[in-house]
Parts: sequence; C-alpha cells; structure tokens
Amino acid sequence: MLFQVRMDVNLPAAMPAAEADAIKLKEKAYSHQLQESGKWRHIWRIAGQYANVSVFDVDSVEELHTLLTGLPLFPFMQIQVTPLCRHPSSIRSTDQ
Amino acid sequence: MLFQVRMDVNLPAAMPAAEADAIKLKEKAYSHQLQESGKWRHIWRIAGQYANVSVFDVDSVEELHTLLTGLPLFPFMQIQVTPLCRHPSSIRSTDQ
Amino acid sequence: MLFQVRMDVNLPAAMPAAEADAIKLKEKAYSHQLQESGKWRHIWRIAGQYANVSVFDVDSVEELHTLLTGLPLFPFMQIQVTPLCRHPSSIRSTDQ
Amino acid sequence: MLFQVRMDVNLPAAMPAAEADAIKLKEKAYSHQLQESGKWRHIWRIAGQYANVSVFDVDSVEELHTLLTGLPLFPFMQIQVTPLCRHPSSIRSTDQ
Amino acid sequence: MLFQVRMDVNLPAAMPAAEADAIKLKEKAYSHQLQESGKWRHIWRIAGQYANVSVFDVDSVEELHTLLTGLPLFPFMQIQVTPLCRHPSSIRSTDQ
Amino acid sequence: MLFQVRMDVNLPAAMPAAEADAIKLKEKAYSHQLQESGKWRHIWRIAGQYANVSVFDVDSVEELHTLLTGLPLFPFMQIQVTPLCRHPSSIRSTDQ
Amino acid sequence: MLFQVRMDVNLPAAMPAAEADAIKLKEKAYSHQLQESGKWRHIWRIAGQYANVSVFDVDSVEELHTLLTGLPLFPFMQIQVTPLCRHPSSIRSTDQ
Amino acid sequence: MLFQVRMDVNLPAAMPAAEADAIKLKEKAYSHQLQESGKWRHIWRIAGQYANVSVFDVDSVEELHTLLTGLPLFPFMQIQVTPLCRHPSSIRSTDQ
Amino acid sequence: MLFQVRMDVNLPAAMPAAEADAIKLKEKAYSHQLQESGKWRHIWRIAGQYANVSVFDVDSVEELHTLLTGLPLFPFMQIQVTPLCRHPSSIRSTDQ
Amino acid sequence: MLFQVRMDVNLPAAMPAAEADAIKLKEKAYSHQLQESGKWRHIWRIAGQYANVSVFDVDSVEELHTLLTGLPLFPFMQIQVTPLCRHPSSIRSTDQ
Repeated sequence: MLFQVRMDVNLPAAMPAAEADAIKLKEKAYSHQLQESGKWRHIWRIAGQYANVSVFDVDSVEELHTLLTGLPLFPFMQIQVTPLCRHPSSIRSTDQ
Repeated sequence: MLFQVRMDVNLPAAMPAAEADAIKLKEKAYSHQLQESGKWRHIWRIAGQYANVSVFDVDSVEELHTLLTGLPLFPFMQIQVTPLCRHPSSIRSTDQ
Repeated sequence: MLFQVRMDVNLPAAMPAAEADAIKLKEKAYSHQLQESGKWRHIWRIAGQYANVSVFDVDSVEELHTLLTGLPLFPFMQIQVTPLCRHPSSIRSTDQ
Repeated sequence: MLFQVRMDVNLPAAMPAAEADAIKLKEKAYSHQLQESGKWRHIWRIAGQYANVSVFDVDSVEELHTLLTGLPLFPFMQIQVTPLCRHPSSIRSTDQ
Repeated sequence: MLFQVRMDVNLPAAMPAAEADAIKLKEKAYSHQLQESGKWRHIWRIAGQYANVSVFDVDSVEELHTLLTGLPLFPFMQIQVTPLCRHPSSIRSTDQ
Repeated sequence: MLFQVRMDVNLPAAMPAAEADAIKLKEKAYSHQLQESGKWRHIWRIAGQYANVSVFDVDSVEELHTLLTGLPLFPFMQIQVTPLCRHPSSIRSTDQ
Repeated sequence: MLFQVRMDVNLPAAMPAAEADAIKLKEKAYSHQLQESGKWRHIWRIAGQYANVSVFDVDSVEELHTLLTGLPLFPFMQIQVTPLCRHPSSIRSTDQ
Repeated sequence: MLFQVRMDVNLPAAMPAAEADAIKLKEKAYSHQLQESGKWRHIWRIAGQYANVSVFDVDSVEELHTLLTGLPLFPFMQIQVTPLCRHPSSIRSTDQ
Repeated sequence: MLFQVRMDVNLPAAMPAAEADAIKLKEKAYSHQLQESGKWRHIWRIAGQYANVSVFDVDSVEELHTLLTGLPLFPFMQIQVTPLCRHPSSIRSTDQ
Repeated sequence: MLFQVRMDVNLPAAMPAAEADAIKLKEKAYSHQLQESGKWRHIWRIAGQYANVSVFDVDSVEELHTLLTGLPLFPFMQIQVTPLCRHPSSIRSTDQ
C-alpha cells in the first residue's frame, strides 16, 4: 500500500553542528536501508526548503508508523501522511 | 525536471451526466498519452477524494503549464505545483 | 487497518426534497450493510452539524476508497481520511 | 456522553530524557486506569505523528475537563474537543 | 451543561422575501420558546454580522443536537459548538 | 455594552511554579473583584483547554481595554474581542 | 467610541446592471449622510479591491450595528468589526 | 499617499523590564515626532491587544519603509501594510 | 513606485464562450497598452493556474487602483497588492 | 526558466549583533554575485517587512535549489517558490 509522506525538518538553532551532523548521517543510512528494501519508494527534495515529499510502500499503517517514528530526525520533523491508491487513469497495474 | 502536481476536481452539479462522462473519457485518453510518453510519471488517487497527486517529468515550466492547461478537466480543477529535485539521501541518480 | 473518516454533507439547496430523501434512504441502507459487515466500525454525528466522524476497518487503502466513493452521498461530501494505528497506551490488542 | 478528543503532544527539546520518561510512564498508568473504568473508550495513534485521537464517555463536560486536565502530559498538549452524539444511521443503540 | 454555540446565517440570494420572512418568523418563535424553557440561556448578535453567539443549557449533547437541528434556519446556518464548564475563578456556583 | 472576550493562556515552560502560582492568585482576586462589580459578567472554562470565554459589560471600549490590560496574566494571554449587541430574538430587554 | 470596519462587497454576477447601480446610488447617499453626521469618520478604498476600510465613531455597539445593517449593500457584504481605543502614544486627546 | 499599517508587538519574555521600558520610551518619542510631522496620521490601539492600527501619509513606498524600519520596536513587530486610496463615496477630497 | 499584483481569474462556468473570448481579447489589448506605456512592468503566468504575478510601476496608489479596476476581467478577479521598494542588496538603482 | 521566490528572514533574538552583521555582509556579496551573473533577476524589499520577493532565472529546479540553499541567511529563512512562465499577454518574448 502506498502513502505519500511530507516531512518538514526543523533542527533547533542551539543544536551543536557536530550533533546535527551525526543525526543527519544516521538519517541517511536509515533512509538508504529503507529505500533498498523497497519500503521507501521515492524521496524528493522540495525546492528551496528543508523538506521532502516521499512515497512509502508498506503492508500496513502500523508498519508505516513504525518506520516513520524510527527516523533519527523524527523528533525534529513535522509529518503529514496521505493514503494513496491506484488511479483509474493509470497505465500501470500498480504505480510504485 | 520533476514537479509534483496536485489536482482537485470539482464538476458543477448541474453538468449533465453525458457531458461529464465525455470529458472524463477525453481526460483518460489524454492522461494515457502523457503517461506513455513519460511526461506524466506518476498518478495516484487520494483516498476518499476526487483528487490526485501526480509527478511530471518535463523539460521546462513552460512545457508543464502547456500540458496542465491542455487537460480536458482543467477548467474544473484546482491545481497546485511543487518543484522537486533529487534528494541527497536518494539511492538513485534520478528518482522518476 | 483502521482509518478515521470525517464526512461533511452539503446537499444543493435546489435539490427537490423527494430526491434528497431517496438519496438519504440509500445512504442509510448502504451504511447499515457496511456496519453489519464490520467494515464501518463506528459512526458518530458531530453535534450541531450535518457531518459525521467514522472509523473504518479495512484490508487496504484501495478497499477504503472503494467503500467511500460508493456512498450514495459521496458527490455531496467533503471527506478527510486519517490513518490510525494501535496506541501504545491502549489496553486492547486492537481498538476497534 | 461521547466526546472526540484530539491530543497533540509537544515536549520541550530541553527536557531531560529521564524527566520525559517519568511523565510518559505516569501518562500511561493514568490512561490505563481511565480506559479500564470505561471513561476513555478509545485511543488511536495518528500515523506519523506524536498525537492521538480518542473517544471519552463521560457524564458531563465538567467530568471530561477534569479528566483531561489531570493528564500528566496536559501542560505539553494541544487539545481539541468535539461533542458527538448517536448517528441516526448507526445500527447500535449507542456506539461506544 | 453549558455549550457555547455560534450560528452564522446565510440565506440564498434567490430565496423570495416572503419565504425568508416566514422562516425568520418561525425561527423567532422557536427561539422564544427555548429561551423561556431555560434551554437557550443567552443569545447575542455579533455586531455587523448576520450571526449570533449563544449559550445553551442542556442535559446532554444529544439534546443540544436535537434543539439545533430543529432550528427553522438550520439548513442555512454554519454552526460551531464549544463545550463549556464552570471556571475556577467564577464567583458563582454555576454561571448560566 | 457587552463584549465577548476569549482568553488563551500560555505560561512559559521555564516559569518557576511559585511565580506562576503567585500570578494565578492575583488573577483570581482581580477577576473576583471585576465579577462582583458586574463588569465581568460571565466567565466559562473551555473544556480541555487553558482558555476561557467571557462576557464583559462596560461603558466604553476604553474601559474594556483598561480592564483587560490590567489582568495579571495579560502578558501571557492571546485575547480576542467580539462586540455584541442585543439580539432581536432575545426575550430579554438586555441579555447580560 | 471608535470602531474599525472592513467591508468586502460581492454583488451576484446575475444581478442586472440597473439594479446594481440603484443599490450603489442608495449606498452612496446613505454613506454621505453618515459621514456628514460625523458617525462615519473615515472611508478608504483598499487598492485593487472592491472593499473599504472605515472608521466609525458611535455611542454604542448597538448604534454601530444599526448603522451597518442599514447599509443598502449590507446583504452583499462581508463585515469585520475591530474595537479601537486611544493609543497611549497618540499626540491627540482623541484620534478621530 | 495613504497606507494602513497594522503593528503587532511581541517583546521577548526574557527582556529585562528596564530594557523594555527604554525601547518603549524611544518608540513613543519617535512616534510623536512622526505624528507631528503629519507622516503618521492616525494611531489607534486595538482593544485587548498589544497592537495598533495606523494610517501613514507618505510620498512613496520607499519613505514608508524607511519610517517603519526606523521604529525602535521594529525588530519585535509583525507589520502588515495595506495601500489605501480615496473612496469614491468619501465626502472629502482627501480623507487623511 | 513598484507594486506586486497577483491576479486570480475565475470566469463563471455559465458565461457563453463568445462572451468570455470577447472579454479576454479586450483584456489583452488593455494589458498591451499598459505594458507599452511602462506602467505594467512585468506579467508572468503562474504554472498550472489561471493566474498571474505582475509588477506595476505607477506614480501613486490612486493610479494603481484606477489601472486595476479598469481591467476588463476585473469583476472576475481576486487581486492582492503588495507594495515593494528597492532592496538594499540590489545591484540596480531601481529594479524595474 | 523563471521562478518567483519569497524569502522571509527571521534572525534569532539571541544572535550577537556582530554575528548577524557578518552573515548579512556575506549574504549581500552572495546576492551581488548572483545578480551580476543574471541568475537572480530581480530582488525587491516588501514594504515594512524583513522579507523580499525575487525572480530567479535558472536552467533547472536543481540549480535553483542549490542557489537558495547556498544563501548565508538560508538557515534563518522561510522560502516559498512559485514556478512562472511567459504570459500569453506579455509584449515580450521572454519577461526577465
């Protein structure tokens, strides 16, 4: 099942650069792993913003929630989830 | 270049069913043609709404605008365009 | 899987009362059938409004979308879907 | 009487982890007790957010307010209350 | 129990004056009856608007909903309900 | 003249409990005095929120502003003022 | 007492030009009379909009409401009222 | 040329009272000087808020911007500018 | 003086195509004339919308308002005006 | 390709003046360089605000994002990007 997820990141100004870098590094590794597993189907940067639009392909809402709350940047994110389904005009049987 | 496009459709209640069906048929054919050309990369239905989230892959903003205003349902749509770019955490060179 | 669904109904002022009554009757029958099947777990009226808050228990987003767009009142509704999951503080294994 | 309650939690970034854990533990115990008493009928996590949607079954608005302001996390919550009533299409005499 | 209710009235421009007058007359009679019964405790006009702020004193949310949907102007109103309770700083045992 | 006033209170998380308690005590005394004088006609707690809806009965906007800015909690409040007048459907000559 | 009033005018597209002109003529005469009486202290056009920002100087909210609802264009206006008072930094005893 | 300016002031809670008083004193002197020069035509307090509505009479947008950014409280203000012009229904040749 | 102007066009669905075409033709001629005079400095289409962002260079707010209300499409537009001035970081003496 | 960019700057109140000045100096140099290269076509100050409206002329969304995230003030900005295209009523072949 597909879900669109928008993530807006907001790191506290007071966070030391080293700490921020460490979290971002973990975030990247975590994201890579989920992309490679096929769970995190797409990730795009929104131009001019510290934000992304992503598409997740998961077996349940539960799984989606577990993946999202496991994000190293989760405590510093605003997240919006939109459930998607196949569009009747799509030329694909499933548009992942 | 990738752009996320959200389209909310709102057909007037007074439109005769035959007219509505004819427009939707044209819309489907138009969408199929753009999907097959690779310009309209993704189209997903938003659950519970007469709306879709799409991703277009075009050569310029001009081309995007031409494609969108050519939609048979364009006069009955609210459209929001969000410019996207490759995310530094993406495992792909381009995430189409 | 559980989804919260809020439905706001807005019948056109010009709709003849007989037509409105016929749609509402169909809506009620449709709702009863889904409630009895266990798909439409809860339905509450929001005080002072022609609107409800519901909880659906479905196997996929696809199924949810099919059920919602099948509502006789769907063309006259604004619908908002919120994906839910079990809360870690819940005393139940699943809170249907 | 039923009330839908949405709670968004926002702990200060500066709060020590031990203090946060202690409050969350108290919150869980408090919630369990109210769920077992039947006052806190439902609690669902909103996917991707540190927020829940709940349904309370109380004898009065006064009682609801007392229960909510007694939440250990209350000082860190945004709370929205929506009064509900039985929906005429419900197949139950009361939809708790 | 006390509930604040805000009602915004919006009669269709096309409604004949006689029909509008007839509804308003019924509305006034209905309102008088509820005020005299003590259920509709306060009603104030918002300056410069075809809207009112009211306070209802009812035994249940169910009763409130029945009273509000019985308003002759209900089909032409936007209604917002806010549950109230005694304020700890009030000098009255109940502030009706 | 009657004015509806909504006050949302937001004490800084860093304020010492003793300081907060002292301000709240002053606030209560100030409120009692204005209620007894008849200036602060009604005060209700909004269920689930650190906020109140009040009705003031004053001789001028100037007086209202003086009373509100004199609130010990004023620096920590968001205040919204709505001018009210007698509703033509009211059964009272003045609905205080 | 001074009140800022913002009026946004929205005449129905279907209104015959002659009818619109007649209402506007009455509106102008009504406005002139109130300006000359000193009740309608200021009226400014908002650039690029069919809207105005005005300042009224009235004896009571009641009087303000009577003046506003007497506007020939009132049924076609959205009106927002903001109560004003003398600013402590004003160099005038009253800033009309 | 006339511009409506709304200023909402928000001093940091942590600012020492002496520092706040010093800024407010400068602000008052600055405002007096501009009012006396005729540039700052009107200033009104919005009832219940630390905010004002003002009207400036300047020769250019440039001049307006220079005056506003010169406000001692400018770093602590939210400012909204609305360009005004003479209203066709005004009884004055210019409504300053 | 420079003003940014955003115009959103919304022609009634019921307007005959010939009438719409006639208005658009007049609009184009009117726009050409103002662009050639240098008053209408820039006009850009917003991608995917029947809307434009423009920059006007006028001698006064009055002149701007006269130009905008003279637009043949004015009755079908939502217009927002933002006053601009030279930016201190601009490399031009005036950025028209 | 042209993009409208709105930037709202919000420096933390706690930032030392010397640090703020240093960042602003870098920002100015960076902006000058991009203006001279023709990438940053226009920059206007919004009257009364620490904000600008700009127009960028870039080869891709990717390039736009790189330029914007390279702004020395980027961590302290809210940025909104609007894709623009040539307006059919423009008298220019390209309106830079």
